[in-house]
Amino acid sequence: MKRYKNGEIWDFELEMPVAESSKDVILGLDGGTTSTVCICMPIVPFSHSEPESLPTLARAVSGCSNHNSVGETAAKETLEQVMADALSKSGSNRSSVRAVCLAVSGVNHPTDQQRIMNWLRDIFPSHVRLYVQNDAVAALASGTMGKLHGCVLIAGTGSIAYGFTEDGKEARAAGAGPILGDWGSGYGISAQALTAVIKAHDGRGQNTMLTSSILHKLGLSSADELIGWTYADPSWARIAALVPVVVSCAEAGDEVANKILVDSVEELASCVKAVVQRLALCGEDGKGTFPLVMVGGVLEANRSWDIGKEVISCISKQYPGVFPIRPKVEPAVGAALLAWNFFMKESKRENSKS
Amino acid sequence: MKRYKNGEIWDFELEMPVAESSKDVILGLDGGTTSTVCICMPIVPFSHSEPESLPTLARAVSGCSNHNSVGETAAKETLEQVMADALSKSGSNRSSVRAVCLAVSGVNHPTDQQRIMNWLRDIFPSHVRLYVQNDAVAALASGTMGKLHGCVLIAGTGSIAYGFTEDGKEARAAGAGPILGDWGSGYGISAQALTAVIKAHDGRGQNTMLTSSILHKLGLSSADELIGWTYADPSWARIAALVPVVVSCAEAGDEVANKILVDSVEELASCVKAVVQRLALCGEDGKGTFPLVMVGGVLEANRSWDIGKEVISCISKQYPGVFPIRPKVEPAVGAALLAWNFFMKESKRENSKS
Repeated sequence: MKRYKNGEIWDFELEMPVAESSKDVILGLDGGTTSTVCICMPIVPFSHSEPESLPTLARAVSGCSNHNSVGETAAKETLEQVMADALSKSGSNRSSVRAVCLAVSGVNHPTDQQRIMNWLRDIFPSHVRLYVQNDAVAALASGTMGKLHGCVLIAGTGSIAYGFTEDGKEARAAGAGPILGDWGSGYGISAQALTAVIKAHDGRGQNTMLTSSILHKLGLSSADELIGWTYADPSWARIAALVPVVVSCAEAGDEVANKILVDSVEELASCVKAVVQRLALCGEDGKGTFPLVMVGGVLEANRSWDIGKEVISCISKQYPGVFPIRPKVEPAVGAALLAWNFFMKESKRENSKS
Repeated sequence: MKRYKNGEIWDFELEMPVAESSKDVILGLDGGTTSTVCICMPIVPFSHSEPESLPTLARAVSGCSNHNSVGETAAKETLEQVMADALSKSGSNRSSVRAVCLAVSGVNHPTDQQRIMNWLRDIFPSHVRLYVQNDAVAALASGTMGKLHGCVLIAGTGSIAYGFTEDGKEARAAGAGPILGDWGSGYGISAQALTAVIKAHDGRGQNTMLTSSILHKLGLSSADELIGWTYADPSWARIAALVPVVVSCAEAGDEVANKILVDSVEELASCVKAVVQRLALCGEDGKGTFPLVMVGGVLEANRSWDIGKEVISCISKQYPGVFPIRPKVEPAVGAALLAWNFFMKESKRENSKS
C-alpha cells in the first residue's frame, strides 16, 4: 500500500482500530466535473430493488476529478482524499476494502482506464477488485439499481449518452467536452446564450432578452464586459450555471433562448438515438422497450420549459418503447451497486471453480 | 522609469550609448495570440504610400501576448521584452522614444485599455505618447498605410472585424474568442472539424474524410483519442493549425469539410457587414466604396478553395463598393505608422497653439 512522505491522507488508519462489524466493505465513486462523491457499503445481502433498504455506511464529497478539466495530479488527489474520508467516516480502513468501482468523467479510452487502474493498484492491497468506468456507467446503474442494461443520458455541465446490452456490448455518444461539440450540455447551452448576446451586440444577430438577463445575473453593465468575464476563469461549471437564465428567457417567450433550448433537445436526443441504434437496444424492428436513465441538472429542471420531457418526446417518435427513469439514488450509489454486483459475480465464479 | 530588481529586461540601456542619429524613435507593436512583433522607426519624414520607402530601424519578435489566453503577467512580460529587444537592436533606448502604439489582441473594453496604459506609463518617461488599441486597428493601418478608415477583417487563430469612419467613429464584430462564437476563425473551423469527426464516430453525424485526415495529421489511431489530444493542451493556436487539413478535405470533395468552410465564409462576411452597416461605411444607399483590409492565415491561404475570395464575393453581393486590400506590410508596421501619425498630428496641434 501507498506510503506518503507527508502521510496526511491515510493517517487516520494508524489511529483507528477497525470495528469487526465493518470488516468487508466496497467503495463506489462518482467523479464529475463539478463534484466527486464516494459511498462506502458493507458486503451484506440486501434487496437491490428498494432504495430505502440500501445499507450505506458513509458518504464523502469533494470537488472536480475530471483530469481533462483540472489536470491529473489534482484529479488523483481529489479521488484519493474522498475515498479516505468515506473509509474514515465508516470506521473502516483500506484493509477492509474488497472492491472499488471508480466511475469518473474524462475516461474516454482504454489508456485512460489503464492509467487510473495502475494508480489505484498503488493505493490498495493486491486482492482488492478494481473497476474503472466512465461516470456515465454509474449514472446508468443508479437508475437500474446496479444492472448494466439500457441507456443513460447525462446533461449537467457536460453531456453524454452511454448504453449497454444485456450481453455486455457498450456504446457511447458525445461526452467529448465543450471544444468537441457537446452542445446539448449545460455548458453548451450557456455558451450559445453568451454567443447570442455578443452577436446581438455586434449587430449581426437578433436582439434577445438574454442580454439584459445575463448581464443582470453576472452584475455586468455591458456586453463588452462579457468577454473579460468569460476568459477570467476557464471553469466549465461556472459557464454552465447560466442555464436557468436561458430557461427563464425561453419561458418568457424569447425566440433566441427558445431556439437554443430546442436545438439542445435535438442534440441530446440524437446522442441517445445513436446509442440505441448501434446497440439495437430496441431490437431489429425498433419497437422493443429499453430503460433510459435521465441524469443531470439540465434534465432535472422542474420548469414549465422542461428540457428532459422534450428530449423523451423527441426520442419516442423514433423509439416508442423508450422507458424513462429518474433515478432515486445518486450515481455514486450506482457505482457502489456495480462494485457489489461485479464482486459477487466474480466470487461466485471462483467458488464454483474451486 | 521602471527599475527591476533583477533588471535584466532593460539592462542593455546601461551598457549602450545612444547614437545621435537614432535619437527620436517610435515603437509599433502587434500583439497577437500566436506571436508578438515590435517595430522601431525613426521620426523622420517619409512617403507613407510606398512600403519600400519605410525607414524601419529594427524588428523584434516574441510569443503570445493576449492576456485572455496566457494571463496578464505573462502577456506583460512578453510585451516589455519585445520592446526592449527592438530598442536594443536599433541602438536606441527608452529615452529616445517619443510615441508607442501598442495594438494587442484581447483589448475589448475601455478598462482593458486603461489597465495596459497604466502599466506602460510605469515603463516610459511621462512625455512619451502612448496609444493602446485592439490588434485589429494595427492590421487595418497596415493595409491603409496608417490611415484609420474602412474595415479590417482578421481571420487567423481568432477572428474579428473592425471599422473606422473618417470622422473617428468605430465599430467591431466578433473577436470574442472561441467560447463566444468566433466560428469563422481558424480555431472555429478546426473545432467544428474535430466535432464532425466525433459525431461521425458516435454514429450521429455523416462519415467524413476529415476523420482519416485529422487522425493521420495528429498521429492518432482512433477518434476516441481525439478527446485526450484536445484537452491535453488548451492553446488556441494548436487547434487552429488544423485549418489546412479541412481545406484539403473540402478541395477533395468532402461534403462535411465543405459545409464547415461555407459556414465560416458566411460567418466572416456577416461580421464585416455588421460593421459596415453600423458605420454606414458605404453611405446611406449602400453603394459607396470602402477599403476592406484582409489579414490572417485563414484568408491568405493560397488554395483552390479560397476562403478570402469567397468572403469578398459574399460581401460584394450586399456592398458592391467593397475594395479588398491585402496589406504589403505587417500589422506591427501598421501600428508604427499609427504612432507616427498620432504623434505628428498632436505635435502640429500643439505647435499651432503655442
